[in-house]
Parts: sequence; C-alpha cells; structure tokens
Amino acid sequence: MPIGVQRKVLAWQRAALHYARQRENIMKKLFTQVTGSVTAARGFKAAGLAAGIKKSGKKDMALIVSDVPATVASVFTRNQVKAAPVKLDMLHVKSGKARAIVANSGNANACTGKLGYVHAQAMSEAVARRIDAPTEQVLVCSTGRIGVNLPIVKIEAGIKKLLRQVSRTGARDAALGIMTSDTFTKECAVKVGKFHVGGIAKGAGMIHPNMATMLGFITTDAAVPRAALQRALRQAVNQSFNRISIDGDMSTNDTVLCLANGVAGKVSLPEFQAALNYVCLELAKMIVKDGEGVTKFVTVEVCGAKSDRDAEFAARAVSNSALVKTSWCGGDPNWGRLMDAIGYSRCKIIEEKVDIAYDDVPAVKAGQPTRTPVAKLRKIVKSPTFTIRINLNLGRGRCTMHTCDLTEDYVTFNKGE
Amino acid sequence: MPIGVQRKVLAWQRAALHYARQRENIMKKLFTQVTGSVTAARGFKAAGLAAGIKKSGKKDMALIVSDVPATVASVFTRNQVKAAPVKLDMLHVKSGKARAIVANSGNANACTGKLGYVHAQAMSEAVARRIDAPTEQVLVCSTGRIGVNLPIVKIEAGIKKLLRQVSRTGARDAALGIMTSDTFTKECAVKVGKFHVGGIAKGAGMIHPNMATMLGFITTDAAVPRAALQRALRQAVNQSFNRISIDGDMSTNDTVLCLANGVAGKVSLPEFQAALNYVCLELAKMIVKDGEGVTKFVTVEVCGAKSDRDAEFAARAVSNSALVKTSWCGGDPNWGRLMDAIGYSRCKIIEEKVDIAYDDVPAVKAGQPTRTPVAKLRKIVKSPTFTIRINLNLGRGRCTMHTCDLTEDYVTFNKGE
Repeated sequence: MPIGVQRKVLAWQRAALHYARQRENIMKKLFTQVTGSVTAARGFKAAGLAAGIKKSGKKDMALIVSDVPATVASVFTRNQVKAAPVKLDMLHVKSGKARAIVANSGNANACTGKLGYVHAQAMSEAVARRIDAPTEQVLVCSTGRIGVNLPIVKIEAGIKKLLRQVSRTGARDAALGIMTSDTFTKECAVKVGKFHVGGIAKGAGMIHPNMATMLGFITTDAAVPRAALQRALRQAVNQSFNRISIDGDMSTNDTVLCLANGVAGKVSLPEFQAALNYVCLELAKMIVKDGEGVTKFVTVEVCGAKSDRDAEFAARAVSNSALVKTSWCGGDPNWGRLMDAIGYSRCKIIEEKVDIAYDDVPAVKAGQPTRTPVAKLRKIVKSPTFTIRINLNLGRGRCTMHTCDLTEDYVTFNKGE
Repeated sequence: MPIGVQRKVLAWQRAALHYARQRENIMKKLFTQVTGSVTAARGFKAAGLAAGIKKSGKKDMALIVSDVPATVASVFTRNQVKAAPVKLDMLHVKSGKARAIVANSGNANACTGKLGYVHAQAMSEAVARRIDAPTEQVLVCSTGRIGVNLPIVKIEAGIKKLLRQVSRTGARDAALGIMTSDTFTKECAVKVGKFHVGGIAKGAGMIHPNMATMLGFITTDAAVPRAALQRALRQAVNQSFNRISIDGDMSTNDTVLCLANGVAGKVSLPEFQAALNYVCLELAKMIVKDGEGVTKFVTVEVCGAKSDRDAEFAARAVSNSALVKTSWCGGDPNWGRLMDAIGYSRCKIIEEKVDIAYDDVPAVKAGQPTRTPVAKLRKIVKSPTFTIRINLNLGRGRCTMHTCDLTEDYVTFNKGE
C-alpha cells in the first residue's frame, strides 16, 4: 500500500473507532442499570433452591416463569455431542413461545441416552402441568457431570418447591441455582425508557468432576417479533459469549435463551439491540473474570485485517494459545508468542506490517521490536487488566475478544484427584 | 449402517490393522538400530560446541558436513512468521544439493528484519568458504529467543572451531548443540542392509525466555533421487513430527532437513521409506516424552472416521484440549471431556456410535458409559504411558497422534519471571 493510502486508511480507522465509541456512549446514557436481573422485566418471576443434586448441599435448581407466554429466541452449542435437554429445547423453541425455563446444576444429563431424554421431558412436563402451559413452552437446561443419570425424583420434588417459591425477588436465588464452579453470581439488568432487559449466566470454565457449561438466560418485557428477537440475540451472542475464551473448549450443554413477554409493548429495535448487547457483554465479561484460577482479564483487539473473519482467526489464536496465556500469568510481555500465534492462525498476515501494543505502549512496529524498555511493558502485563492491540495494516477487518491467563491453579483445579 | 455391513467393516478394520502390524514387524526385522545418529551414515561428520550464545555456557552450536554434495529434502514451518534462517534455507534447498547444516541454539534469529537475514547469510558463507562449497549448499538453522540480533562475531568464531572439530564421532555433541529446554539428546539411527538412516532432533516445547522450535536433521548414505527423497521425507514427517502435540503451538523456526549423500549406492525405496519413517517417529516420540513438565506419554488412536482427514481432526482436538490434557495429569479417566473434544472438532461424528477405550478397557460404548469400574480406568490413566482408542464407527478413516499431559510444571516453566 502506498504511504498516502495507508495514512488515509489509518485516518478512516481512527474515525470509525471514534464514531463507534461515541455511539456506545450515547447508548449508555440511554439506559440505566437496575437490579433484579431476570426479574427486572415486568411479568417475570424466579426462584432457586437446593434439591439435593449437589453433594455440597448448595443451590442446584432454578426456575424462571413468565406470567404470559413470551416470544423465545435461542442459541445452542455447536458441539455434535448435545445433552438431552439441548435436544429437547431445540424442538420446543420451534413453537416460538415459552412460559418457563427450568434448570439444574450438578448433573449435565449428557451422554445419558434415551433415559436422559425421557428425564428432560419429565422436567418440562412437571413444570408445564403446574403452570397450565403446553409442554413445548417449558425449556430445560442442565449443567454438571456427564454420563450420569439425573436423580429425577429429587428434581421433581425440587420443581414442586420452586413453583411455590417463585417471586419477583427470586432472581438471585435462580442465579445461584445454576452455578457450578462459579465463585460469584452473574447478574445484569438495564432499563431503557419503559422496557427492561436483564439476565443471569454461569461460567464456561470446566471443572472436575463436572464438565460445566455456559448458560445464559435473558428476559425482557419489550414486545419484539420472533424473527427480530432471534436476529438480535444472535448478534448479541456473537459479540459477547462467542467472543470470550477461557480454555477454548466448547461444551455439550451451552445454551443462551431470551424470553420477551411484551408486557411493556413495542419498542425501538436499535435501542433494544443496544440493551441486549450490553447485558450479554457484561455477563460474558463476568464469566471470564470468574474463570478457573484466573488472575488476569485481557482484551485482545485485532484491527487492520483483510476481513472481520480474518481478524477473528487472529484474535482467537492469541486468546486460545496456551503459551500466550501462560506468559500473561507470569507477567511476561512475550510479544514473540503473539507474533507466533497470529502467524499460525488462518488469518492472512505480512510479518513486516504487524504492529503490536500493550495498552497504548508499542512493543512491535512493522514486525520488529520497538525501543520501548521491557520494564515498561512488564508493568502493564503485571496489572490485572490490560489490552493487547494488534494492527495487521492490511485492511479494515477487526475483532475484539475477552480472555484470561492460564495459571497453575487452572491445572490443579481441572486435573481431578 | 445395517448390522451386517457394520460387522463386515469391523472385520475389515481388524484385518487392516493386523496387516499393518505384521508389515511393521517385518520392517523392524529388516533393520537394526545402530549408534552414531547423524554420523551413522558413511561420509558424514559432525561437531557441537559452546560458542557463548547461551549465558549458561552450555553447547549452543552444531555442524553436520557431508564429504560429497548430498541430495536434500526439507519440510519447513507453515507459520506465516518465518525466521531469517528459514527464509534463507527455502532459497538454498532449491539448488537440490547440500554439503552442510550449521545450527545455533539460544537465539532464533526471528523478527530481526534485514539484519537477521544478513546474519543468516553470513553463517552460511562462513561455512561454505571453508569447506569450498557454493553458499547454496550450506543450510542454516536457529532456535531460541525471538527478536534479538544474533551475536554474529561469537558465531563466526564458533564456526571456525566447529570446522576444526568435525569428526565421525561428533553426533552427540551436535545433538547437544541444538538443545534448548530439552533435558536429553534425541538421537536415533538404523542400518538396513548396506545403507544407514540416522537423525537428531530437538524439542517442540517452548520456554521462556526462548521460544523454542522443533528441529530435525536426518542423514543417510542411500542414493535417493531428489523428488523421491522429498516425497519420502514429507510422508515420514506427516506420520511423526506432524502427529505429535505438546501445546498445539507452531513455531517460527520449525525445520526438518534430510541429506542423502549416496555413498552406499542405490537402495530399495520401500525399505528406505520404512527406515526413514522409523527414525522420524522415534525422534518425534522422544520430543513428546521430553515436553515441558510432562509426566505422561499418551497415544491417541482414532479409527472408523469417515476419512483419514476427519480422523486427524478428532485426534488433534483430543491431543490439543487443555481440559483433556489436564485430566490426564491428575490420572482422571474423564471420558466426558473426550466426547466433548471430538464433538466440537471438525470431524463428523454420531454421538450414539462412538466407542472409547483406555488401552483395551472399554469406557464408552455407543455413546454411553460402560459398566467398567472407574477404578480400573483410573489405574490405566495413572500409569505413565497409555493409549486412548476412539472408534467412530462411521468409516475407514484413521489417525494416530502422540501427546502428553498438561501439568502445573508446564505453566510454571512457561510463565516467565
């Protein structure tokens, strides 16, 4: 690229970034954060309790109920091995409507064959019968150990109790009920004018003896048509839950559900999208921060790629590299490993054009180290939160990922006995 | 698949396996292991010494010289970020002939710009001038820290000494001279009738402050035409160095070179291929066993995939999964993580058809856990060497990978300060 053109592209990139940030700020002013997560939106109730699935006696079940049938949107794991509740939900969401989500932790109900599927059906029926809704309107989620049959009697007893307990203040209990290795609940809700968007989530880190899962439940009282809601959720998930990396593994149970009961009436779609994006991203960031053994929260920004897809390849390679993540754990500004990771990714790069900065401090310029003292870079990498900025100087493609370091504690945590 | 057809496929698979093992045994009888690695073949000399590149004072340079110009074959890293010596070698091998390989450890000469390339050229010229060969016939390899200029004066002094020291017994010193984080030298040689194949290698694990590399140098006195030699090396590398995984990262300097000087005259190509395969696989296995912090050597065998490519996707997903490797470290037979990894790989699977065995003990049959007591599986996973056998029951594709566990020591080793 001639220098003139290159400068113009740079100016364009800066302008685009400035515009995006400005828009983000306007959107942030638009909505205010509120409490209550999944019960912030009107017409939703929730509950959570300990049904005895977890040996620890901690909360292991959650229920979210909408007073009226809600429009439903969903995103499921792309893993070819799908847990029974995922298979069931994929059928149920075809009805387009949902009244309730029932979830359990401590047991994934995955690799459990036909009996597993029957158990998932039993869970949805147990709720449906009591709230007087068709079975298809009750969605089921499980997370926990793989290959073990559900203790269905305990679960059915739990469901009865949950239905007695559901209330406008039960969101926190529900958030507790879906936790596995998580150390804190993940809750977020915003109010935009007359409508609300709120959600709870649980972590993507995986632990022994459980193989845990990413679950996200979003509720809103906005009235959004089904197709628009599905598009909106897909977009929100793509820029949040799909842009985080803890260990790069994808689970058999990953599920994000969004229920829109329309109690607040019609809303502006861009406003709704902004609110949904915000809630999903906040929940996703909490998941990374609560990853197993995590000591550092790192944002990886790739720009100047030939396409957004290329940028994603590069950002993902950096975010998933064991060597890169381990160097962060030691507070080591090892930019060589970054070069290596983007070099072997499927993203097109030209070594002599790559710029890398830690926060705003350049470490690599045109593929070669800058004169920045290592101590200055080390100070950044030693802090608990920092950003890696990679400019490939080849185009306009960009991608941002949120990730964490790989620590001895992660290994200790996951290695089992 | 109807059961009759399925049984036939199974019988076919068993027959193919039996045949392959039989052929392997015949081949093993064919050749005898000998000492001397890269100097086992006639007409090759080698040397290694400490030139002062490594602060530790350990050996950091190696030289292999052939008395006569040898036919050369090569496999280089597919990383888009290539070190200067790799770029130089890619030009030099076009001549088809090589007299010498000069290598240094402690400095990768990567991300060093034009000066790095000049330094690589200087290394090859320094050798070529003294052995009276064209510059193109001297190949250069570097491994070690990225982004630091070579101490070229020390290296040129080292080359002078190396040329005085080269001998028929210098192979071990050469193997020492290319080591970085390796704890033992990787050497192997076999004799087949009148010809020899031998080689040295260094590890693929990466350490701080070095970003280490996989290097492999193979020598033979067989006379093999250039195109056939290149095909043979590609095949041997594909089933050895390309079938191992330590952390899944690919380096900027990975290089395998094969020099055939023809002193022993023409040979049977299948015999040569078998010997080359054997030497490369033995070296590759040694690399895995010497991986950083490794306590377990695990073989992952996938069969019954739709194609060999599919089988490779599945085997690679298992071998590279942080969660799977961590569970091995703890001696935990966590087959759920295996199901998860093959499920998210690009390999086509049907959950209800997957069989998994640890050594010969079945853990999963048709996608569901067997009644094998966990203690029995645990005993296998607790041993230092075991095999994971995955049968997808979908076709005839198969792939074998060699990998290791992920330990706290790996993290400690790689995290830097």
